[in-house]
Amino acid sequence: MTPAPSLFDAEKYFHEQIPITRAMGLRVMAHDENGFVVEAPVALNSNHLQTGFGGSINAVATLAAYGFLWLGLQERNVHVVVAESSIRFLRPVREVIRAICLPPAPEEWAAFHAKFTDQGKARITLRVNVVEAGQVAAEFQGLFVARSG
Amino acid sequence: MTPAPSLFDAEKYFHEQIPITRAMGLRVMAHDENGFVVEAPVALNSNHLQTGFGGSINAVATLAAYGFLWLGLQERNVHVVVAESSIRFLRPVREVIRAICLPPAPEEWAAFHAKFTDQGKARITLRVNVVEAGQVAAEFQGLFVARSG
Repeated sequence: MTPAPSLFDAEKYFHEQIPITRAMGLRVMAHDENGFVVEAPVALNSNHLQTGFGGSINAVATLAAYGFLWLGLQERNVHVVVAESSIRFLRPVREVIRAICLPPAPEEWAAFHAKFTDQGKARITLRVNVVEAGQVAAEFQGLFVARSG
Repeated sequence: MTPAPSLFDAEKYFHEQIPITRAMGLRVMAHDENGFVVEAPVALNSNHLQTGFGGSINAVATLAAYGFLWLGLQERNVHVVVAESSIRFLRPVREVIRAICLPPAPEEWAAFHAKFTDQGKARITLRVNVVEAGQVAAEFQGLFVARSG
């Protein structure tokens, strides 16, 4: 049996499979009971105001959710796509775009996981917070579809 | 009086002020009565399925709206930021992410422009379609704020 993918595998997967993540300087930081965390420096994702570009912030949030599902499903050949998403920008990001995919409620995750296992396809809504200096800079929500590859 | 910015100026502005747009291969294609059009190749914005990465598609759509406002306001020192946005992904993008910011209704634009001129700040909701082979691949909507710099 192949070992479960690690944080390093997740980062490698992003950099190989979604090449723009290299230019964005994306790093996978954590995956624990608080969620799945990715970061990208504003220096590589800046806008005309020298703060985080909204498009990059949205992309980093999307990647946090991808990674959460990819590691959460513990399967290397899962394909995750985003079906729809929305984001609210509350304050500028100045140094680091840090996106935390929040774990869904246990019963919601269990239902998603069971459907994915049974049918090879399932969808789930995930929430991602972009935080800096203890404050939420952006709130993201997306509907994600996972398919067995 | 400084001449109004051109398509070339808009592309140069993006590449200089939002550096990730260079890695994305963003190009400004058109600005006419049908809207403001930007493109980026899937080759530089691909995901694990070799189609357009959702985060890049959203970023290209956001940039179409930025450019529409920047050129539409005909002022070099306007600052545009996105306050919130949503996107629906309808089908994969296979070759080129082409985003068209649709012109708002004339009365809506006139009200926005008047408020921007009077108060130096105004907000407007813009719709952007991502199209390929005559079909809409994604529908984006965003609330944008323009400030006189």
